[in-house]
Amino acid sequence: MKKLCNYIEHTILKTDATIADIEKLANDAIKHNFFGVCINPNYIKPIKELLEGSEVKIVTVVNFPLASNTIETTLFQTSQALEFGADEIDTVLNVAALKNKDYKKVEYDIIKTKDVCKNNNLKVILETDLLTKDEIAIASKIAADNGANFVKTSTGFVKGGVGARIEDVKLMYEIVSPYGLEVKASGGIKTYQDAINLINAGASRLGTSSGVDIILGER
Amino acid sequence: MKKLCNYIEHTILKTDATIADIEKLANDAIKHNFFGVCINPNYIKPIKELLEGSEVKIVTVVNFPLASNTIETTLFQTSQALEFGADEIDTVLNVAALKNKDYKKVEYDIIKTKDVCKNNNLKVILETDLLTKDEIAIASKIAADNGANFVKTSTGFVKGGVGARIEDVKLMYEIVSPYGLEVKASGGIKTYQDAINLINAGASRLGTSSGVDIILGER
Repeated sequence: MKKLCNYIEHTILKTDATIADIEKLANDAIKHNFFGVCINPNYIKPIKELLEGSEVKIVTVVNFPLASNTIETTLFQTSQALEFGADEIDTVLNVAALKNKDYKKVEYDIIKTKDVCKNNNLKVILETDLLTKDEIAIASKIAADNGANFVKTSTGFVKGGVGARIEDVKLMYEIVSPYGLEVKASGGIKTYQDAINLINAGASRLGTSSGVDIILGER
Repeated sequence: MKKLCNYIEHTILKTDATIADIEKLANDAIKHNFFGVCINPNYIKPIKELLEGSEVKIVTVVNFPLASNTIETTLFQTSQALEFGADEIDTVLNVAALKNKDYKKVEYDIIKTKDVCKNNNLKVILETDLLTKDEIAIASKIAADNGANFVKTSTGFVKGGVGARIEDVKLMYEIVSPYGLEVKASGGIKTYQDAINLINAGASRLGTSSGVDIILGER
């Protein structure tokens, strides 16, 4: 089994995070051997340089957090993020189309975004706080059938949302793992025990702003 | 004084709002003579057709709600929104740059976005829940000096945020009105009394998802 630090995408996506906050995040990620940092698209360029020579990956978010972009904007954003040095792209599922049972539209957005990602991993954020269990199952299957590499639970920005639930991660893992996809748990992950519970449920990545606390909790 | 209905930008920006929800919003806006609807970019195209022949304007949001886009993505998004039929653009201030006192970057983003907007109104969302009074004052002055048409209080998406405060609207109005800009209050506006208080403080637009309740409260 891989080490706990290799599960962690050390994350800051807040509006008021300054470049100093993001630099600290990146330096902490290097120090603790985290898998990567998860940062907003406007910080990829400066952070790419700081991470040069390290193993830490850059994960970024597109069509985030409201899934409110046109597909053309999402593709522009994805293409620029990769050009600037992002290693992985986390996009938000078209939740409204899913709820409308307009599965063709949900599929189309994933296919188009994966086309731009090519060999870079694409994660599809289901935003589980807004979905029923049936919708989580359908969304997971659609992601698996259309080229995504991961399904991810949450943006962390739903009002009153709880983020990654153990039962949702289990359900997602059960559906996508036969197709070779992995599960990223994110939202509300704060302690070592949260991390272990979600890994035991099937998560192979954890998106969290508490990466350092989690690692220290291991000792 | 203009009628209360003409202050209202009837708003839905939630991830899980379906096309049926947005069509209802638009039909309510027509029925109650609201100034406009405020909707996400991915709904402009279908709603433009529905509003054809009415006076109701389409307001949309870019670089929203996290101010996390690169400027290039924001300009792409703005340009496409106008092409699809948006009448006004609400963008989010570069809050992180403001906090870093990197005022050149804050200015640059506003100037570039206004260049794309041309004669269409550009509103700059300060995200007052994240700012000190001094920062609100500086941001208002920067918006006024660099071509914005409105300053706006809030995205409505800050965790634990309260949205439009009367004292913030007063401060913003005091600073921008000598330069001919107006103030849009948004976030947490739910009742007729909220609306009147914010108008008395200087707001000439109200962004709210409770437009119908507010108008009914007038009677």
